[in-house]
Amino acid sequence: MAEKVDLAAKLAAFDGTFSPKIVALFNGHKVAVVKVRGEFVWHSHPDTDDFFLVLAGRLTIALRDREIDLGPGELFVVPRGVEHCPRADEETHVLLIEPLGTPNTGDAAGERTVAEEWI
Amino acid sequence: MAEKVDLAAKLAAFDGTFSPKIVALFNGHKVAVVKVRGEFVWHSHPDTDDFFLVLAGRLTIALRDREIDLGPGELFVVPRGVEHCPRADEETHVLLIEPLGTPNTGDAAGERTVAEEWI
Repeated sequence: MAEKVDLAAKLAAFDGTFSPKIVALFNGHKVAVVKVRGEFVWHSHPDTDDFFLVLAGRLTIALRDREIDLGPGELFVVPRGVEHCPRADEETHVLLIEPLGTPNTGDAAGERTVAEEWI
Repeated sequence: MAEKVDLAAKLAAFDGTFSPKIVALFNGHKVAVVKVRGEFVWHSHPDTDDFFLVLAGRLTIALRDREIDLGPGELFVVPRGVEHCPRADEETHVLLIEPLGTPNTGDAAGERTVAEEWI
């Protein structure tokens, strides 16, 4: 049975950064919340766009040719195949949407890859 | 070239209710903002889930067996094929995600069907 999701309550229920937590499914996609602080890794997703909506804080999505700065209520869709590196100076809360099974590190893999986890 | 989207700025740029405005594309889906006030029509989407995230105000999504009440920062995914009727007592701002080409009135069609429009 589908239930509503309170994003702030979900975000209050875990601590780690760069570890997305799935809160809902939508047309084969995972809807997830993530806390960002510091810099992630450069990566791309060859088969999917990557949806970012900032809920709190400020997120910078570095692209190879420019930077996208997002505050609360601002979204950006990284086109498939485009290299990007998210970072935040302060703890920032983000809503992510990607196909279920998409690795958080995309084509970069490595030690910062985390398993898909619900909250 | 993909650009960031300021949802509040987009919402400030139009007036009508129940007339979603597309602000971005994501994996063949339209990401749209809509203003809701009053009651929409009962409908379902046989081929797609329906994503609702409340940005401001309060939204009630009536289902045939219960009601989902959403405030800011709360989301609900109506499963494909499930009849629903959104309504709001006060003007409420919602982020919607559906496949491009999905009619706003789903299987109900009728006079409240509107064309897809960007803002």
